[in-house]
Amino acid sequence: MHNNQHIYLNGEILRAQEAAISPFDIGLLRGYAVFDLLQTVRGVPFMVTEHLQRFRASAAQLGLAVPASDADIVTAIEDLLGRNGHKEATVRLVLTGGVSPDGMHFDPTTPTFYILTHEMFDVPASFYVSGATLLTHEHRRELPEAKTTNYLTWLKNHPRIDEAGALDVLYHSGGIISEAATASFYVVRDSKILAPEKGVLWGTVGSLVLELAKGHFEIVYGAVSLEDALSADEAFLTSSVRGVVPIVRLDDHEIGNGAPGPVTKKLMHLYRDRVYG
Amino acid sequence: MHNNQHIYLNGEILRAQEAAISPFDIGLLRGYAVFDLLQTVRGVPFMVTEHLQRFRASAAQLGLAVPASDADIVTAIEDLLGRNGHKEATVRLVLTGGVSPDGMHFDPTTPTFYILTHEMFDVPASFYVSGATLLTHEHRRELPEAKTTNYLTWLKNHPRIDEAGALDVLYHSGGIISEAATASFYVVRDSKILAPEKGVLWGTVGSLVLELAKGHFEIVYGAVSLEDALSADEAFLTSSVRGVVPIVRLDDHEIGNGAPGPVTKKLMHLYRDRVYG
Repeated sequence: MHNNQHIYLNGEILRAQEAAISPFDIGLLRGYAVFDLLQTVRGVPFMVTEHLQRFRASAAQLGLAVPASDADIVTAIEDLLGRNGHKEATVRLVLTGGVSPDGMHFDPTTPTFYILTHEMFDVPASFYVSGATLLTHEHRRELPEAKTTNYLTWLKNHPRIDEAGALDVLYHSGGIISEAATASFYVVRDSKILAPEKGVLWGTVGSLVLELAKGHFEIVYGAVSLEDALSADEAFLTSSVRGVVPIVRLDDHEIGNGAPGPVTKKLMHLYRDRVYG
Repeated sequence: MHNNQHIYLNGEILRAQEAAISPFDIGLLRGYAVFDLLQTVRGVPFMVTEHLQRFRASAAQLGLAVPASDADIVTAIEDLLGRNGHKEATVRLVLTGGVSPDGMHFDPTTPTFYILTHEMFDVPASFYVSGATLLTHEHRRELPEAKTTNYLTWLKNHPRIDEAGALDVLYHSGGIISEAATASFYVVRDSKILAPEKGVLWGTVGSLVLELAKGHFEIVYGAVSLEDALSADEAFLTSSVRGVVPIVRLDDHEIGNGAPGPVTKKLMHLYRDRVYG
């Protein structure tokens, strides 16, 4: 099915099965690549500006530049969405260092840039109603401020996550929480939102939610410890494809009373209101 | 030039420009891939058995299996070497989780497996004669016992390495040395060889060199601190494509008297003797 889809590759729209990535691509040989992922809302790309800004920032951290203007990228995305006919889609932008004949050197002026669309996956409704579990894992993402394609630790933990019925894995290092593998993570204590600030990816939806939270709740930016999370009143994660999800368990440990709390519910409401009107 | 070469891809020998990797490959989308690299000596693959053993062990750590027998792989390598006509070659085996339509899930029974050959690159002779510099860098490789394709930190540091005329970057974490980005690293003190044991990739050439060193020098396996290295008599690295290289500087700090020492020279001699007869 994905083979019949259209993709954008280095300025062209092609069918996926015609779109050849070189086996010498440094994105394959050395994992030297960044990406970004956005969703559509009623078929329209959501927060494109913010995602493109983050995508360019990720690229810059690897010494790469996205070889297309925002306008050209938006046109390509709309073209793909029109052809691929999803109900709702996630749109994936991928940028690698390009072809490397020796597996070591590459020319940053000839990167590989492509765009894929996927049918939006369903998040189980129970995660929003009853809250979700995260498994904790001692790990710190490499170049955490860049959205690189390195998800080794996440994928290696996937079977364990699925088996536990968990949503994702929560990374911590030296007792300090950073983020979930595929989402930002926040803690609520005494109606204040504690937001990890350093060594994390800038969350597009996370930033929007904190913006919406202003005026309702105090936000404290800084280091958040695993201890803070375990003894918190509430916790939640944010991600582009999932929005706001209450987190009610870390491993076997219940957070608060083990149910979505009032602050999280308010944020879910504010976010849905903003997105779906 | 690399486009005219032949490569092996999932059981077939193809020209590189006909060899299409899907843009949906999880090796690209999520960096979920391992590889191995071996060299030829007078055109003949060197230590193939050990490299294939390590390749399969890396794959297993990611829940993957190499979809070909050792005999078939050796046949494919010999076929490629015959067609691609290198003077001496490095041979690269790459295994990814295969195509992932949603960028998350993949079927480990349909991996992407390919083999490339590269013309062997020249290591500057001065590195062997006068010794080389490593730049130190606080970092620990993710899944260090697996040879994954994740070289983000190395490639990001490449410009700095080149600018310093250094050979590579030496990783340490919490004051303990692990390995160079592309080589194993050892320290010599009082004619004893100190060998990092945990959290490092098993070195094919490193193991051979330590084997050859037995009977000449005592080998001490265990944690090696950055302090140990800075105050060592000698240091050296080993890698498949470089053999034994004396390391005489870490950043601006000279090791020993800043020249290749007697133990390292003896090991270089033993290794060359073993390889070139």
